[in-house]
Amino acid sequence: MELRGVFPPIPTPFSDGDLDVDALASNCDRWLTTGVHGLVVLGSNGEAPLLDEAESDLVIETVRARVPPGRTLIAGVARESTVGTIRAADRAARLGVDAVLVRTPSFFKTLLHDEALVAHYTAVADASPAPVLLYNFAALTGISLSLDTVTRLADHPNVVGIKESGSDIGFISSLVDDTPDGFRVLAGSAPAFYASLLSGVAGGVLALACVVPEHCVRLFELVEAGRLSEARLLQRRLTPLARLLTRVHGVPGLKAALSILGYVGGDARAPLMPVSSAAVDELRRALLSLDAPVA
Amino acid sequence: MELRGVFPPIPTPFSDGDLDVDALASNCDRWLTTGVHGLVVLGSNGEAPLLDEAESDLVIETVRARVPPGRTLIAGVARESTVGTIRAADRAARLGVDAVLVRTPSFFKTLLHDEALVAHYTAVADASPAPVLLYNFAALTGISLSLDTVTRLADHPNVVGIKESGSDIGFISSLVDDTPDGFRVLAGSAPAFYASLLSGVAGGVLALACVVPEHCVRLFELVEAGRLSEARLLQRRLTPLARLLTRVHGVPGLKAALSILGYVGGDARAPLMPVSSAAVDELRRALLSLDAPVA
Amino acid sequence: MELRGVFPPIPTPFSDGDLDVDALASNCDRWLTTGVHGLVVLGSNGEAPLLDEAESDLVIETVRARVPPGRTLIAGVARESTVGTIRAADRAARLGVDAVLVRTPSFFKTLLHDEALVAHYTAVADASPAPVLLYNFAALTGISLSLDTVTRLADHPNVVGIKESGSDIGFISSLVDDTPDGFRVLAGSAPAFYASLLSGVAGGVLALACVVPEHCVRLFELVEAGRLSEARLLQRRLTPLARLLTRVHGVPGLKAALSILGYVGGDARAPLMPVSSAAVDELRRALLSLDAPVA
Amino acid sequence: MELRGVFPPIPTPFSDGDLDVDALASNCDRWLTTGVHGLVVLGSNGEAPLLDEAESDLVIETVRARVPPGRTLIAGVARESTVGTIRAADRAARLGVDAVLVRTPSFFKTLLHDEALVAHYTAVADASPAPVLLYNFAALTGISLSLDTVTRLADHPNVVGIKESGSDIGFISSLVDDTPDGFRVLAGSAPAFYASLLSGVAGGVLALACVVPEHCVRLFELVEAGRLSEARLLQRRLTPLARLLTRVHGVPGLKAALSILGYVGGDARAPLMPVSSAAVDELRRALLSLDAPVA
Repeated sequence: MELRGVFPPIPTPFSDGDLDVDALASNCDRWLTTGVHGLVVLGSNGEAPLLDEAESDLVIETVRARVPPGRTLIAGVARESTVGTIRAADRAARLGVDAVLVRTPSFFKTLLHDEALVAHYTAVADASPAPVLLYNFAALTGISLSLDTVTRLADHPNVVGIKESGSDIGFISSLVDDTPDGFRVLAGSAPAFYASLLSGVAGGVLALACVVPEHCVRLFELVEAGRLSEARLLQRRLTPLARLLTRVHGVPGLKAALSILGYVGGDARAPLMPVSSAAVDELRRALLSLDAPVA
Repeated sequence: MELRGVFPPIPTPFSDGDLDVDALASNCDRWLTTGVHGLVVLGSNGEAPLLDEAESDLVIETVRARVPPGRTLIAGVARESTVGTIRAADRAARLGVDAVLVRTPSFFKTLLHDEALVAHYTAVADASPAPVLLYNFAALTGISLSLDTVTRLADHPNVVGIKESGSDIGFISSLVDDTPDGFRVLAGSAPAFYASLLSGVAGGVLALACVVPEHCVRLFELVEAGRLSEARLLQRRLTPLARLLTRVHGVPGLKAALSILGYVGGDARAPLMPVSSAAVDELRRALLSLDAPVA
Repeated sequence: MELRGVFPPIPTPFSDGDLDVDALASNCDRWLTTGVHGLVVLGSNGEAPLLDEAESDLVIETVRARVPPGRTLIAGVARESTVGTIRAADRAARLGVDAVLVRTPSFFKTLLHDEALVAHYTAVADASPAPVLLYNFAALTGISLSLDTVTRLADHPNVVGIKESGSDIGFISSLVDDTPDGFRVLAGSAPAFYASLLSGVAGGVLALACVVPEHCVRLFELVEAGRLSEARLLQRRLTPLARLLTRVHGVPGLKAALSILGYVGGDARAPLMPVSSAAVDELRRALLSLDAPVA
Repeated sequence: MELRGVFPPIPTPFSDGDLDVDALASNCDRWLTTGVHGLVVLGSNGEAPLLDEAESDLVIETVRARVPPGRTLIAGVARESTVGTIRAADRAARLGVDAVLVRTPSFFKTLLHDEALVAHYTAVADASPAPVLLYNFAALTGISLSLDTVTRLADHPNVVGIKESGSDIGFISSLVDDTPDGFRVLAGSAPAFYASLLSGVAGGVLALACVVPEHCVRLFELVEAGRLSEARLLQRRLTPLARLLTRVHGVPGLKAALSILGYVGGDARAPLMPVSSAAVDELRRALLSLDAPVA
């Protein structure tokens, strides 16, 4: 397993409200024709909090069957309880994922201090058959892993990295600086991708990479090759679409963009609502400006 | 069913990490010897987000068997997805609850605008065999139902009230003022209980009422009887303990207080951690100052 | 001096951008024909942060000349520095105010912990020739006095009370409960006025009282007389206008409402912008619904 | 005037509570022996909100007399009112500053929408004899200039740049991308300095540069020279001290660090309190680890 490169956090397609396994498989096949280094299922963009346990397993099973050796499959397994997370990690590992991604619990906000989070992740990492990636998404959860907490957890042999969804580059840099060399920091903010790579992150888990995977891979490779001014220019071109897919329109926007490109997008599950037709037009224009293959 | 009065949101006891059905039953029996008007299961204090579906059903089944006619049984059924909430409401209704309590979804914060929340609750209320109580807990969820959203939903024949966990008395008063007479507003903040009753709420769902149920019932009755200065004085005596049970120590503190009183308290589920022994002493002192039956 | 009752925090009129002393005086004369118990100058509604030192003094001087004995004149004197606050308090006292109102400093947010705030207010209270009212306005300043800080400061012989601008009735009640009997808690939130009075506050500093002073005084008197259902009903009628004057339209809305009523309102100082004509219409309708003397 | 490079936002020394002009001058002389490209007076680190108008002028006058041609002198002139800001900008320009730095107004938070901010800055830029730098400090003010607002203001001929105090590298990059080439973006976050330079900012206004100016200049020059791995390593060494000077200890910590190095530091003005002796030790260790000339 390699945790370097570009990993699209893929959405979960539905048909008449039910998980659409065929669409999920065909979408995967198409992503795998691009140079992405692996796939992430059951992340926020996969609407994980809106799926039940059986659906979650089916998503993993379906995608596992498509991802060949040499590409990394990561699955989100966070639940609010430690025991629920451990069970989900165990099932995901048995279904063959290469690593599990564990978002912070967040419901009992005032009680989730550093000690509680260290104990939670330590228990999960002790029990999980698959390597564990921490997952910090303060803007959605209202909880942030402190630098000190991450540093302590990075010493655990089964904690292999972190996905940081924010764009505070001081914090991202310190995650790189204050953890051992093999600990992988993955960027979750596409507008921060170039600067994050320059600061030492190993790659990105980017909604943008579901839509324009080749561009994201190229940005990664340009930085690897030291062709920084080209990379910076590409980042500049990608940022407006990245914002539309996350801050502005979220998962329903991501799915709409995929539909425009001929993937199976479809609606997100309620209570998420479809984007407006004006939003679809805005997304189409942004895709066209990047020469994406609009259907 | 009557939604007036005092309703303890009861905790869920565990033994060796598993749901302790016997303890739950015996705790219920003791609460029912007090004058409380009903019980709430699977609320935040019931650690609902830390239970799985089967455990949730078992909690309802167990408590349903103990609560006699004439007392109201309310069950929390919120899930992040609309479909998951509908299924949980349906199961709860089949298990015999008198009403379901539906906390706002909250994960996809930026997408949960008024329209999405109205659509979510309308779908749940359309489908639920049991009457629906809205549940607003902005401090934990980061999402707040607007006054306008509540007013619109109050017109739905199957939406019978709201539990408001905040203590903004301007907002609470407007919930009473701007909804039909039969719509029940229940206070979720014990330090605000006296003022909320004076402002027209129908009762309270108060962690405090798990610990000192008679005091809470008495406060309710004093206000009903117009004996306001006695009520105000009682509120004053109760507020310090109320704060310890919620803001300061949360669910683990509530369970510790129950243990002190001879109920089965026990530990909360991880990632929640037990309170310190200093906290236990602080809780014991607060209970003694209220002449609670410390074991 | 009496700190019980209703105190309008009066706006500062400008003419061609300069302080309009005549308008200020004539507005005061009209307010003093109502039953208000005093006036507050240089509060937030007085645009204090937008005035310079000389203008501030002139406001006090002008209003001092109109307010007769038996009515209380309170002046805001907060500056970010302790020394600046002391100087402003000293000047205000020499100009004859009955009490000074001292909003929390707030610029260096992370450094303004309890100790710093206690030291600040103690230094101001030690030095001020006039009695000091604390002033907590967390929604605007991002800083909140803790209950513990207020309790400690309430022991200072020259700290006579607090204006609390929030509507957290649990907090307001505790301010009353945990301070000595002579310490005056004044409500700053008009939608919370009824409940605050029932909880023991001594009165209110309410933007609403600039616009419908008689209604506010009547609400105060109804509660004093124990005519609670009439009081509750009046509160209900007043709340919609109160929201328009504060949360919705702020100071420019307050000034527009005054203009509608024949006071000199005028524009707020930039960077505040005038309200729209739709807002003026909305305010006029709200005033008419209260039988206010719309010009 | 050149707005590229490293600009320390210098603190204001006091002696017995009064502005210490001699200390200010001697500190300046020492900073000017380093390679810094200019100085910023009356920023947040200069305790500007704690100074009165006469003191503010005296600071500018004193520093103007020490800064030679070829180095840039920038002065903070923000007031809450537009008119007050214009007057302060005018006085600063007459005293010879090269540019004025205008922090967003912030008191009337809910009313300071994009239109109000555009009008405010346009009026200031129209009137100011000196070029205007916008200044965004959301963490302290609770107000953030939107990308759209900055883009609109960047078209004004007298608006020459922005100091952005945050470390959201996506936002910082877009400030560079979406404004004309001559518009200077200056980083205000030292832990983000390396990444900000790589993203195209023109320099930094960094508290860190008051304490280790040569290191900051070297970091700037290494990036200019394309020696990125050395620059990244230097950033890594500097970040811990940078955090101590801002997030952890703030202005009092900055002054303590200066005292350790033989500058005149002294106490900040109340309500700011001195740092503890433990903090002084922590700062000394951090300075020693960077081979700073500890006295």
